[in-house]
Amino acid sequence: MEPKANWKMNKSDRYKKGWEKLKEVDGEAGERVIESLKDIAPDFADLLIEFPFGDIYSRPGLDLKSREIAVVAALTALGNATPQLKVHIHGAFNVGCTKQEVVEVIMQMAVYAGFPAALNGLFAAKEVFEEREENES
Amino acid sequence: MEPKANWKMNKSDRYKKGWEKLKEVDGEAGERVIESLKDIAPDFADLLIEFPFGDIYSRPGLDLKSREIAVVAALTALGNATPQLKVHIHGAFNVGCTKQEVVEVIMQMAVYAGFPAALNGLFAAKEVFEEREENES
Amino acid sequence: MEPKANWKMNKSDRYKKGWEKLKEVDGEAGERVIESLKDIAPDFADLLIEFPFGDIYSRPGLDLKSREIAVVAALTALGNATPQLKVHIHGAFNVGCTKQEVVEVIMQMAVYAGFPAALNGLFAAKEVFEEREENES
Amino acid sequence: MEPKANWKMNKSDRYKKGWEKLKEVDGEAGERVIESLKDIAPDFADLLIEFPFGDIYSRPGLDLKSREIAVVAALTALGNATPQLKVHIHGAFNVGCTKQEVVEVIMQMAVYAGFPAALNGLFAAKEVFEEREENES
Amino acid sequence: MEPKANWKMNKSDRYKKGWEKLKEVDGEAGERVIESLKDIAPDFADLLIEFPFGDIYSRPGLDLKSREIAVVAALTALGNATPQLKVHIHGAFNVGCTKQEVVEVIMQMAVYAGFPAALNGLFAAKEVFEEREENES
Amino acid sequence: MEPKANWKMNKSDRYKKGWEKLKEVDGEAGERVIESLKDIAPDFADLLIEFPFGDIYSRPGLDLKSREIAVVAALTALGNATPQLKVHIHGAFNVGCTKQEVVEVIMQMAVYAGFPAALNGLFAAKEVFEEREENES
Repeated sequence: MEPKANWKMNKSDRYKKGWEKLKEVDGEAGERVIESLKDIAPDFADLLIEFPFGDIYSRPGLDLKSREIAVVAALTALGNATPQLKVHIHGAFNVGCTKQEVVEVIMQMAVYAGFPAALNGLFAAKEVFEEREENES
Repeated sequence: MEPKANWKMNKSDRYKKGWEKLKEVDGEAGERVIESLKDIAPDFADLLIEFPFGDIYSRPGLDLKSREIAVVAALTALGNATPQLKVHIHGAFNVGCTKQEVVEVIMQMAVYAGFPAALNGLFAAKEVFEEREENES
Repeated sequence: MEPKANWKMNKSDRYKKGWEKLKEVDGEAGERVIESLKDIAPDFADLLIEFPFGDIYSRPGLDLKSREIAVVAALTALGNATPQLKVHIHGAFNVGCTKQEVVEVIMQMAVYAGFPAALNGLFAAKEVFEEREENES
Repeated sequence: MEPKANWKMNKSDRYKKGWEKLKEVDGEAGERVIESLKDIAPDFADLLIEFPFGDIYSRPGLDLKSREIAVVAALTALGNATPQLKVHIHGAFNVGCTKQEVVEVIMQMAVYAGFPAALNGLFAAKEVFEEREENES
Repeated sequence: MEPKANWKMNKSDRYKKGWEKLKEVDGEAGERVIESLKDIAPDFADLLIEFPFGDIYSRPGLDLKSREIAVVAALTALGNATPQLKVHIHGAFNVGCTKQEVVEVIMQMAVYAGFPAALNGLFAAKEVFEEREENES
Repeated sequence: MEPKANWKMNKSDRYKKGWEKLKEVDGEAGERVIESLKDIAPDFADLLIEFPFGDIYSRPGLDLKSREIAVVAALTALGNATPQLKVHIHGAFNVGCTKQEVVEVIMQMAVYAGFPAALNGLFAAKEVFEEREENES
């Protein structure tokens, strides 16, 4: 009878599921992205939680490690989204990838998107590796 | 003492290793690509066997299934290499991916490269699925 | 009490809103896209209705004509999604653009993405104009 | 009789028309681009005034607001020209777009070019909004 | 006193210079592009003659052969404008490139844009080579 | 009998040939790239020397100046690899291009990849020109 309220409750479900998945995959780096959107496009922060994480990452049929391998590969190949690539290299670690696996995925992109794309991917990975070492020590 | 002969033998090693890997990953579709280059750029056929397959796919540190997930993701995202995407969807099956996994990888690209890229990836997958069903029956 | 059922009802709301918007914007061409996904990735058909049309096109703050101008511009510039560009040239007409406006948007892309992208956009537009003339006569 | 002089006079016409349009659309940000080219490629500064602004922006058939919506959309989607995107977000304001309209155009690109492209577009917009607020206060 | 008439005369100069250059570089393939625009966007046909060919190709400082090498490289790397790549492979021949030089330029793109881009460039070259052999025999 | 040792010797040949070519083309800028890979992906440093420089740049059939024109064109057009573009603008000078030729190649990309790509290419060239003037003085 009150579709508006119903919709809110339901939005809440996708949102909550997405938020949990975002924290699991992207960790703090993902939360910072959401935070940075609050004053410019708060609705986009909601959509980012709901669609990619609530709708896509939450799907069965492909494990999270394979999903992050796919994303690191694609962002390396596209070569025009370095901040997001770094978030997802963190993500790859968060869901169980090793350093070697991340490096191999990026190196493989030399074949499909050229050496500059792979080089810039490796330099992004280097920064992420250093960030994580600093945090661990 | 005969570097030329030595080089040939050695080229032969990378080439042979690459050729085995190409057949393992890309199967007949890969062999057709090599064949199609023979009259326009035979050296490129050699380089395609030696570098991507002899040097990259043969590396340890990342299993072939993950490599093909990375490639299907990247080619879907780039969106400008449909024939190669189809070869690597075949490749994904050849190294153990399921139909569902291939579909999930491509769907995930909607988040990172947009819905048109994912749609065109799914249409390419549909053609590959139909080709494989025809061959099986 | 039954979140599953609630979720379905709620999904139905976004879905129904999205479906109406898809029909308004993309018309029959959009419905054919949805239809073509049914056997390969039916969930993707749902997501395509829910996120782009239910979540994005349904937002206030930008009229549909401006949204279609943005989409025709972007797909012309990217240059790797001709089928979707054609659907959205139809869409531009459906929400009130004139033939001249569509041509001007595409021509402007010569400045931002180069003459080949603009040329291929114009050839796609030509096909759409011919399809619409055939249907009208 | 003096084609050279005639050509100069005529170049002057396209140039002057383009220069007026550049100032109207891009404002000071556009003038800075022209200035920055003077020592590396002064002829390119002329061509930039003559073709995009003298030939394209000056055309009838599409209002300036729609032209800037198209450009902000395309540059967000391409994702590899952030300085120019910022110039044209300024441009969108200069020809009458609201903050909300700019944000909606960029958000819509999540559907057609992926979330990373839209995110980076929103971050560019955020910088432009801050620059304009500083100048106004 | 009559800027309009003056402008027309002057446009005629750029147009004529561009038309001669278009015929020299792109030959019949270029003329067909112009022809194909007549009913959809005749003004764009004029701009295509005036800016790329009248303003850019006519510039001193880089020989036509180097210009065509640059264009074949760029269109191979972008990978989303096959018809234009084919026109410019014809163009490369028209201004003095050999078959081997064209093949080497395209092969080099494997390093900078990946093997799929180079492969699709070679397949486009193969079609052009066959077209030219047919015309010669 | 010892394929491993044989392979090393042979790898050494491609590697040495590639290393000489890398120094000839890219000079110190290229050596710095190799150096920067040592701790993140040393194997990729080897592959970068062996395939692009040992296999491709060492081929007959296209002079080094034309190869660098092709690479500067492609990286300007792709627009997502500025560090590599700068290395190859240095490379273009190293193999005999003039400042004017480099500027013309980049300006030509305005036609094929749009004005933003050409502008960003010119700004990269400006930085390289300044670096070289500083080193010369």
